[in-house]
Amino acid sequence: MTEINEPAAGRSRRGFLKGGLAAGGAAIAAGLAAARPARAAGDPAITEVKDWNRMLGDGVVSRPYGVPSPFEEHVVRRDVEWLTASRQSSVSFTPLHELDGIITPSGLCFERHHSGIAEIAPADHRLMINGLVETPLVFTMQDLMRFPRENHVYFLECAANSGMEWRGAQLNGCQYTHGMVHCVVYTGVKLSHILAEAGVKGPAKWILPEGADSAAMTRSVPLEKALDDCLVAFKMNGEALRPEQGYPLRLVVPGWEGNMWVKWLRRIEVGDQPWQQREETSKYTDLMPDGRARRFTWVMDVKSVITTPSPQAPITHGRGRTVISGLAWSGNGRIKRVDVSIDGGRNWTTARLDGVSLPKALHRFYLDLDWDGSELLLQSRAIDEAGFVQPTKDALRAVRGENSIYHNNGIQTWHVRADGTVENVEVS
Amino acid sequence: MTEINEPAAGRSRRGFLKGGLAAGGAAIAAGLAAARPARAAGDPAITEVKDWNRMLGDGVVSRPYGVPSPFEEHVVRRDVEWLTASRQSSVSFTPLHELDGIITPSGLCFERHHSGIAEIAPADHRLMINGLVETPLVFTMQDLMRFPRENHVYFLECAANSGMEWRGAQLNGCQYTHGMVHCVVYTGVKLSHILAEAGVKGPAKWILPEGADSAAMTRSVPLEKALDDCLVAFKMNGEALRPEQGYPLRLVVPGWEGNMWVKWLRRIEVGDQPWQQREETSKYTDLMPDGRARRFTWVMDVKSVITTPSPQAPITHGRGRTVISGLAWSGNGRIKRVDVSIDGGRNWTTARLDGVSLPKALHRFYLDLDWDGSELLLQSRAIDEAGFVQPTKDALRAVRGENSIYHNNGIQTWHVRADGTVENVEVS
Repeated sequence: MTEINEPAAGRSRRGFLKGGLAAGGAAIAAGLAAARPARAAGDPAITEVKDWNRMLGDGVVSRPYGVPSPFEEHVVRRDVEWLTASRQSSVSFTPLHELDGIITPSGLCFERHHSGIAEIAPADHRLMINGLVETPLVFTMQDLMRFPRENHVYFLECAANSGMEWRGAQLNGCQYTHGMVHCVVYTGVKLSHILAEAGVKGPAKWILPEGADSAAMTRSVPLEKALDDCLVAFKMNGEALRPEQGYPLRLVVPGWEGNMWVKWLRRIEVGDQPWQQREETSKYTDLMPDGRARRFTWVMDVKSVITTPSPQAPITHGRGRTVISGLAWSGNGRIKRVDVSIDGGRNWTTARLDGVSLPKALHRFYLDLDWDGSELLLQSRAIDEAGFVQPTKDALRAVRGENSIYHNNGIQTWHVRADGTVENVEVS
Repeated sequence: MTEINEPAAGRSRRGFLKGGLAAGGAAIAAGLAAARPARAAGDPAITEVKDWNRMLGDGVVSRPYGVPSPFEEHVVRRDVEWLTASRQSSVSFTPLHELDGIITPSGLCFERHHSGIAEIAPADHRLMINGLVETPLVFTMQDLMRFPRENHVYFLECAANSGMEWRGAQLNGCQYTHGMVHCVVYTGVKLSHILAEAGVKGPAKWILPEGADSAAMTRSVPLEKALDDCLVAFKMNGEALRPEQGYPLRLVVPGWEGNMWVKWLRRIEVGDQPWQQREETSKYTDLMPDGRARRFTWVMDVKSVITTPSPQAPITHGRGRTVISGLAWSGNGRIKRVDVSIDGGRNWTTARLDGVSLPKALHRFYLDLDWDGSELLLQSRAIDEAGFVQPTKDALRAVRGENSIYHNNGIQTWHVRADGTVENVEVS
């Protein structure tokens, strides 16, 4: 399942197009003015009778749980084999370039495991609350489903998403550069309700969620966040969580790095200081140029990426009407605006944000372009409601150096060639 | 795949509980006041080490396209074998009682086919626009993806949903009584853009969408609706349409009966009068008591149903804190309010509507009940933004008789017994 993901020339592509391109002759937002379909009504594809026009197909419940068309079998999660030593502690990537809207199909949500996928029988699963509480409690799944429920759409992004991009354009496709993000509807119970039942003691300031997988994943989360908007979720996109997303129970920590969204959640300890676990000391910290590490950098900053066209989704229809589309998100709340550049950041046009804007969720944007066939340096730049503006990679490196693999929210550049093929490059 | 769907005593359950129940001692909205979990921290389910706590699980991309947990294999579409003569012209039902939120997982969306599932190669698929247009046109899938795109969440309900309920409580489960509805995110192009490209001629008043399946499904749709909010959709819930939902192309007719949402869409004819097709004369018309038929009854009226507890989802946890949950929708727009009764319609309490309210989409409602173990006659009643109130079945029958199988939006009653089991009944 590895395609288009060989380590390319590494840093060689960085700065490759330093001077940018001459501003091409492409009109933005040409909308409906562009090309008519070339085919006349005599197209044999519509005049000749096909098998599916004259034969009975499969009946209902031929698949009690439906699956995609066989013609869509290229739409899958993919991993990068050389990136990790084992698939049990590894990552797979969401095929963002094949998707639209803001909801990620559950079967295509990226995976990040530290000891593989725990396969848990829900009847045997428990959630324990202990530590600085009046009454330590153990809940069955059924107990949890008796609390008042809520549904929320949230993005989940791994802190290491776009991590390879710190050192220059490397992986040729937004599935690999930005595919450690997904966005689904969660159904669950506010963690504040569950903690209230146990009774949090006065000195408490932190919680430690723990997973039931053999990595026993643990992260320290401030109590303030836990009581604000964290959920204990048992459903995603309407049905039970998928095994690789923490079935039967996961913590939802809206807007914060994915590693904190503990899967297979079995215990929450309440305490008065952080626990200094491996995943918040050795890992998931940002090594700075001077050798010191930024810690507890939880919020996923404002970010965006163009999903089509992109290296895995080239322009194949030639000149004229072209839909440019992408995703934007911010851990601070809603996206206020997304700008798109076709000339490597010299000029910007505001894109159209689609549909209802939900806090800490993906936002879909579109820009309708009348492409004249000239080369493009495509970029998107998101601005969130807190006023944060997505930075260039150079601006980011000036502050953070290149030692980290985490929290890269820099502006991505796609080089669209005259033949419609697309490559991951940098302009600086 | 048929369970709990034997034809029950038919009309016998109707009026069974005519007098209703004595108002039981159940407190509504008791919320967090109720039962604590019974288990103490010594529960062996949490103190003993399980296999999944100590062994590596499957790695990433063990399933490139993920599927539900093996413990969820009961969550499937089901049909009712005696309802139709063949599975090619039949229906399967959404397991509403297992789902939460408002988005239906694509693999669980109910099916209604007239000649089975057309399996279409998208490269060979075309959409033709002909009839009263300046320029007849034929579009490939790629042509359509060059138009400006939109995403919308809409419910789709078969006109025959709850059709068996006209003659009394019969099928014992909301999957069977109300499961011909689903709600997904559609990505597509406004039909108005496509018609504008062809140039609609002055006398045009109707369109006739046609499917590429061997039923060649056709329905007359007023041009006014076509130009208002109809979409030509190629994606659902972020990915390509599923085969059983019209892959690669379906018409979306928001708020109107599902039969008009032509699947495997291959042609749209523009004309000056309706075509009087089989599916709008012999079928999908409402036979009245006097033998005449209501026709062109397109809008799906305001409706709701309680999904838990329900016959397939009994109360198994005993007394105390109980989440009552359900769905409401209206083809007229948004749902304004949902009321819930636990005493067969004598007294009503306003339920909590969850999340953002979207027009012509499902709405999820909750009511938190402190159940004292007494028998309940559970009902829900929805009111839409146009002011329509969901009627009782008796009020509906007084106007429409019992000859029709279509457009039954009457109030549903579930009889919850003291042991938590639930049955489909009527009160009148």
